[in-house]
Amino acid sequence: MINGIQEKNFETIEGGVCAAKGFSANGLNCGLNRDKNKNDLGLVVSDVICHAAAVYTTNKVKGAPLLVMKRHLEANGGMIRGFIANSKNANTCNADGVEKAEKMCELAAKALGLSSTEIVPASTGVIGQVLPIEPIADHINELAAGLSPDNHKKAVNAIMTTDTVMKEVAVEFEVGGKTCRIGGMAKGSGMIHPNMATTLNFITTDAAVSSEMLQKALSAVVKVTYNCLSVDGDTSTNDCVLLMANGLAGNAEIAAEGEDFDRFQSALYYVMRCMTRMLAKDGEGATKLIECECAGAPDLDTAIIVAKSVIRSPLFKCAVFGEDANWGRILCAIGYAEADFEIDKVDVALSSQGGRIEVCRGGAGVDFSEDEAKVVLAADEIRVEIELHQGEASATAWGCDLTYDYVKINGDYRT
Amino acid sequence: MINGIQEKNFETIEGGVCAAKGFSANGLNCGLNRDKNKNDLGLVVSDVICHAAAVYTTNKVKGAPLLVMKRHLEANGGMIRGFIANSKNANTCNADGVEKAEKMCELAAKALGLSSTEIVPASTGVIGQVLPIEPIADHINELAAGLSPDNHKKAVNAIMTTDTVMKEVAVEFEVGGKTCRIGGMAKGSGMIHPNMATTLNFITTDAAVSSEMLQKALSAVVKVTYNCLSVDGDTSTNDCVLLMANGLAGNAEIAAEGEDFDRFQSALYYVMRCMTRMLAKDGEGATKLIECECAGAPDLDTAIIVAKSVIRSPLFKCAVFGEDANWGRILCAIGYAEADFEIDKVDVALSSQGGRIEVCRGGAGVDFSEDEAKVVLAADEIRVEIELHQGEASATAWGCDLTYDYVKINGDYRT
Repeated sequence: MINGIQEKNFETIEGGVCAAKGFSANGLNCGLNRDKNKNDLGLVVSDVICHAAAVYTTNKVKGAPLLVMKRHLEANGGMIRGFIANSKNANTCNADGVEKAEKMCELAAKALGLSSTEIVPASTGVIGQVLPIEPIADHINELAAGLSPDNHKKAVNAIMTTDTVMKEVAVEFEVGGKTCRIGGMAKGSGMIHPNMATTLNFITTDAAVSSEMLQKALSAVVKVTYNCLSVDGDTSTNDCVLLMANGLAGNAEIAAEGEDFDRFQSALYYVMRCMTRMLAKDGEGATKLIECECAGAPDLDTAIIVAKSVIRSPLFKCAVFGEDANWGRILCAIGYAEADFEIDKVDVALSSQGGRIEVCRGGAGVDFSEDEAKVVLAADEIRVEIELHQGEASATAWGCDLTYDYVKINGDYRT
Repeated sequence: MINGIQEKNFETIEGGVCAAKGFSANGLNCGLNRDKNKNDLGLVVSDVICHAAAVYTTNKVKGAPLLVMKRHLEANGGMIRGFIANSKNANTCNADGVEKAEKMCELAAKALGLSSTEIVPASTGVIGQVLPIEPIADHINELAAGLSPDNHKKAVNAIMTTDTVMKEVAVEFEVGGKTCRIGGMAKGSGMIHPNMATTLNFITTDAAVSSEMLQKALSAVVKVTYNCLSVDGDTSTNDCVLLMANGLAGNAEIAAEGEDFDRFQSALYYVMRCMTRMLAKDGEGATKLIECECAGAPDLDTAIIVAKSVIRSPLFKCAVFGEDANWGRILCAIGYAEADFEIDKVDVALSSQGGRIEVCRGGAGVDFSEDEAKVVLAADEIRVEIELHQGEASATAWGCDLTYDYVKINGDYRT
């Protein structure tokens, strides 16, 4: 159990954001991106109206698309049909941002025969450059005409920026004798340090879930998945997670807590944890995934704060890149975590497919073999195990190493 | 005025930590560092007893030397004669850390004919490796015998780690008709994100100042100098600023607020601001100093939080390295600063010896020439000017760009 969620494993299925019944997707290059082989505009639509829940960035600078997404969700009591998303331009810090984001929805709605507030917008890319609407207007009919459950990867491609791999996952589960599906797609590689949300994430399900329970499940799961992810400590202006449920699985609507809700939430947790790991592993320039578990904490928040502090430390991230077991930097980062605990009870171990070494017991170093450490750190997924010995709570945070390529990618991002 | 301190310019003088009357220094290689041309052990002593004040790291992991420094200052009512410091080993997270730090003081005191609590210790280097005491014991007499006002640079050399330049500064000023001096030395290049203190800093003065007023001046100045410095967001375990005043200038002791205190504090501010800039400019791998001023803030704390948030952003630091005027990242970092203000009033400009460009007005982008921006960003000291238009308070924070070399240096620090 973590944050009231039962941790379970699920078999994954194909289909990503279209794995759930009744969802279609498409993506194409409309010209925002000069590389014609890279999609920059995506559309995902449900055959029938959906309950939707969302969480947004806590950055004071909020992308105009997020303001419009929120407005549309409120206008319809959380009922929408789909979303339109573009990459290459964040449509943020522009005087005409809201107007352009509304226009994107209008264009999509018109092509689909819907009302404009049934569509929500999302954008990612450079902040502070005016979004040209013409390329979107010119391609909206082609985009809508190509909607198909088979085109989910085209939509994923449309939201990718510095991502090097597509991030999508889907699972099947049973609710009240009916088979339901949850599928999601995500983008994000840099400017990743979510706080109440993360960089663009879209999740669809055919389970029937009330708006209230959808939001409840999403908020609980976000806290222990996306909000425990940090690539660089920069909380984006355009972060959001949008969850849509169209009910086509035919289960009795989940409208209260109970066994069905627990099962749905477990599946959602599984999907979002998978995507969190994918985002961390594909962090800008990353060569290694770092997974940090803090156990034995007095409460969940302390466990999260400690695990995130380690994941965020640039010095530790560089040491992982260099495969150097410089565990003092882990202790340093635990020590400056803004939480209340005794540092001299802390144990730390490093593990991976290459083995496991204990490096610190009771806040002081223990002898370990540098040769064994080299083998552990040579793996591409490194686990930091922290035991505070001060309670029962635990949490995991995800991040990646800090490499030359992170600097290279971000030294010249706009051009 | 900033934080009650009058900002003034002073002429600098030679002598560093020995510029003030009655201070001698020495440094040598005792063998902690295998490079025989690099000092690793330093000693600074006053001819007469000093009032001393100190601030320490807020990291929960506190280096054993800091615990002993605090204990000795308390034992003598803040009266000490000097300090011994080593590099290459932080003497932190070791079971015998306190014992070894006490031993360092004992050895130095014995060589000088003093009591052990009249000396305070400091260490910097790798965390979690046992400090060998033999090299120090074997060289302590040679170290003490070589004490001289001319050897201040040998002491600076002894505390340097990844520093590429020596950091020392001294000024002269008048108090009650007497000429006084303040001089300081500092080390630090990575793991720099001070919080109530910073990486090793030692400041000496021959002004006569009571312990209470010394601590008052130090705490006020630290808040707007070292605590506004960030190289990588990692708050070190061994940070400290030690300020010693031996009174040999002959002024009437500064024992209360007033004109003399103001003058002393202004000089201390000048010295510590100089060293803060030196530390930022010599940040690990840095090619550029970044100075961020936040003006028009409702209060000092808001100004500091906003300025530090920008200085700390890895994405903005990479953009400065790449000389890319990606101001959206500045807005993003202002937006996630944990302070209360309205984002849509914010103006931002970038300036340097190469000129000045306004990039954002009222939270939205303004057109600027990319050619002019290139010239501004080609300089080696870049200034970010933020105007919140929400009050009268202002503060400056200092940092540096994030480069390939930061990753290189920290990928393999221990070997």
